[in-house]
Amino acid sequence: MIPLEEQIETICREAKKASRELGRIEAAKLDAALRAIGVSLAEAWPRIEEANRLDRKEGRKQGLGSALLDRLTLSPKVFASLIRGVEEVRSLPSPIGRILEERTRPNGLLIRKVRVPIGVIGVIYESRPNVTVDVATLCLKAGNAVVLRGGSEAIHSNVALAEALRQGLARAGLPPAAVQLLPMVDRASIPILCRQRRYLDLLIPRGGQGLIETVVCHAQVPVIKHFQGICHVFVEARADLEMARKIVLNAKCQRPGVCNAMETLLVDRSIAPAFLPEMVRELQARGVAIRGDEATRQFGGSGVAPASPEDWATEYLDLTLSVRVVDGLPEALAHIEQFGSSHSDAIVTEDRTTAEEFLRSVDSAVVYWNSSTRFTDGGEFGFGAEVGISTDKIHARGPMGVDELTSYKYVVVGSGQIRE
Amino acid sequence: MIPLEEQIETICREAKKASRELGRIEAAKLDAALRAIGVSLAEAWPRIEEANRLDRKEGRKQGLGSALLDRLTLSPKVFASLIRGVEEVRSLPSPIGRILEERTRPNGLLIRKVRVPIGVIGVIYESRPNVTVDVATLCLKAGNAVVLRGGSEAIHSNVALAEALRQGLARAGLPPAAVQLLPMVDRASIPILCRQRRYLDLLIPRGGQGLIETVVCHAQVPVIKHFQGICHVFVEARADLEMARKIVLNAKCQRPGVCNAMETLLVDRSIAPAFLPEMVRELQARGVAIRGDEATRQFGGSGVAPASPEDWATEYLDLTLSVRVVDGLPEALAHIEQFGSSHSDAIVTEDRTTAEEFLRSVDSAVVYWNSSTRFTDGGEFGFGAEVGISTDKIHARGPMGVDELTSYKYVVVGSGQIRE
Repeated sequence: MIPLEEQIETICREAKKASRELGRIEAAKLDAALRAIGVSLAEAWPRIEEANRLDRKEGRKQGLGSALLDRLTLSPKVFASLIRGVEEVRSLPSPIGRILEERTRPNGLLIRKVRVPIGVIGVIYESRPNVTVDVATLCLKAGNAVVLRGGSEAIHSNVALAEALRQGLARAGLPPAAVQLLPMVDRASIPILCRQRRYLDLLIPRGGQGLIETVVCHAQVPVIKHFQGICHVFVEARADLEMARKIVLNAKCQRPGVCNAMETLLVDRSIAPAFLPEMVRELQARGVAIRGDEATRQFGGSGVAPASPEDWATEYLDLTLSVRVVDGLPEALAHIEQFGSSHSDAIVTEDRTTAEEFLRSVDSAVVYWNSSTRFTDGGEFGFGAEVGISTDKIHARGPMGVDELTSYKYVVVGSGQIRE
Repeated sequence: MIPLEEQIETICREAKKASRELGRIEAAKLDAALRAIGVSLAEAWPRIEEANRLDRKEGRKQGLGSALLDRLTLSPKVFASLIRGVEEVRSLPSPIGRILEERTRPNGLLIRKVRVPIGVIGVIYESRPNVTVDVATLCLKAGNAVVLRGGSEAIHSNVALAEALRQGLARAGLPPAAVQLLPMVDRASIPILCRQRRYLDLLIPRGGQGLIETVVCHAQVPVIKHFQGICHVFVEARADLEMARKIVLNAKCQRPGVCNAMETLLVDRSIAPAFLPEMVRELQARGVAIRGDEATRQFGGSGVAPASPEDWATEYLDLTLSVRVVDGLPEALAHIEQFGSSHSDAIVTEDRTTAEEFLRSVDSAVVYWNSSTRFTDGGEFGFGAEVGISTDKIHARGPMGVDELTSYKYVVVGSGQIRE
């Protein structure tokens, strides 16, 4: 049997070779491949459905909860939206070859900064099999090859989806090796993937503490982390309380299982008596379990559990909320600095000066004034689609769309210039 | 004695704290600090000169070569240009707060993408003490704190320079902790610095194989490598041979010890008989030692040593050149792909189609048509100054100036928007 290390190296080497081909072709051919992929996916539906059934069967055997089984399921409806997504990515303007800057130097050199593909992008994710198609098509749109490592519970679905993606590439005359899926579910494959610096140009881990920890400790290639969202809404002293009420309900309840949902509510002490009792009741009526500090428990009633220090640093991803009463902007900023994850944080206030100080001081990917945090999303930002939300500050921050999946190079045209 | 690990952690923690202060102040205050730094440096000259003398004395004791001693030397002239450099960085437009994109979504949300500092940047370098000032001032201009780790042979100079930088910050009312220099010369400090992910946002190693290897293997923070330049000039079949001659001499001889100097000359077989004999003679007359393949030795005479396979992958950084005769563009591209370091590569030709294929196909930070490779430089590109030349493809590629020392965040202004 071929050792795991060697298998993964071979897969990555093939992706690198394919990426060189992709790097030389024009955008129209990439778009044609995306169209072919849509057709191949549709044709492969019976095989994909069968593979997905197998994953769910094994998931039930292993006792996966209903929420996880739900995320795993590729229903005909989910699959149709997946194929629509491929078409949406295809219809985006291509970033490749776009001139970002142009300058002519005093010596006559023409310097152009031009968008180019990154090369080979490794993506490690844990969640739904949809991600396999979303991520692969976005990477291809930007001219990149991709090496995918999905969650073990979706392995049969992912293999079937990747096979259809590769058939689409072949049909369009492009190298199928541009889409690679690690077929092994062994967790040992992750550190090995992290060390492929001869072949990988970028690694994107999307997931929780354990995955991020493994990747950060083993990576020898550049990493852009898609880590957790511990998002705050700060209801400031001069907030429109009715607006605040709607934003809080939306940020917590509209879809609590995603990274841009609120995990902690901060309320200015001066309005806590007017705001908190009713707000707590309303959240509880929607099924939200509340953990509060002393003051919150005083205003919120006996249904509010005491918050432990760990609560402030927890991404619940469900209908749980921690609430704290703070003394004005400085204490709110200090709390967010200490416990936030630099993802998305909002202030609700009618006072422009205070809002501007909040927007300037909070070091997060997205800072909001009088808006729900739920808008941190490639689609909502108008990027068309996203590979995820970067919680890093290098290269890409916040929603990462097709532009963020590119690099650039400088193309310099001269007429014999030499340096004096 | 405090353990090394703890010392370095403390230094980085202080830098992080200072970076938060820097992140909140306006550009004018940063510029005022740069002006104060210029004054402090000038005042500290006697101490700096003394420290530099000590470094050179110890260097001579340890048998440093004259080239290295020369690089180590802070003469009054070098020091004056160093201070002018601080003033030049100060006078650059500030990137901080610049609005990169702005869009209003159909729901009325105003989304602004705004340049912000990265935070704390660690820079590891090996060369001249000048780098201490150049890098620190560029980082400060962009609102970042910096943790410097310079070469052990310049430690006294670096400590004296860093002290002056910190005095300048204090004088301007900014936290001196924004400039940190690791005072320990122990190489064990590098892996420890690489693991400071709680405090460092970016690590920039500038140097050779050994340093880059150490950093890549230990880094738990994002890294932008400033690695070697194995730069090529390809003299194509339809080159203007007189132009080619000038470019080759410039790319190799004008300053051979830098990363954008040519290391390998590729010559199309069809023009080799007309071009190589005279070119080789002229290079040799300038003291260049030539290592060639079979064909080059045939045209270049007995003074051409045989090139070994390692030669193609070597960054000589001196008056040595490897030369190979190739069969047209495909073989030139294949050679650059196999042996190049993705830094700077040039084609000399009068044929636009061939030039455009070269510019599109070569995956390097800077690709040139009819120009010397020596222009890969922040100053020559019009960036004003540079922290170095990135050989990576993530975040910054090629000359890395003050703009590349920033990140961005999204500032979203609403009027109560919630997500449906």
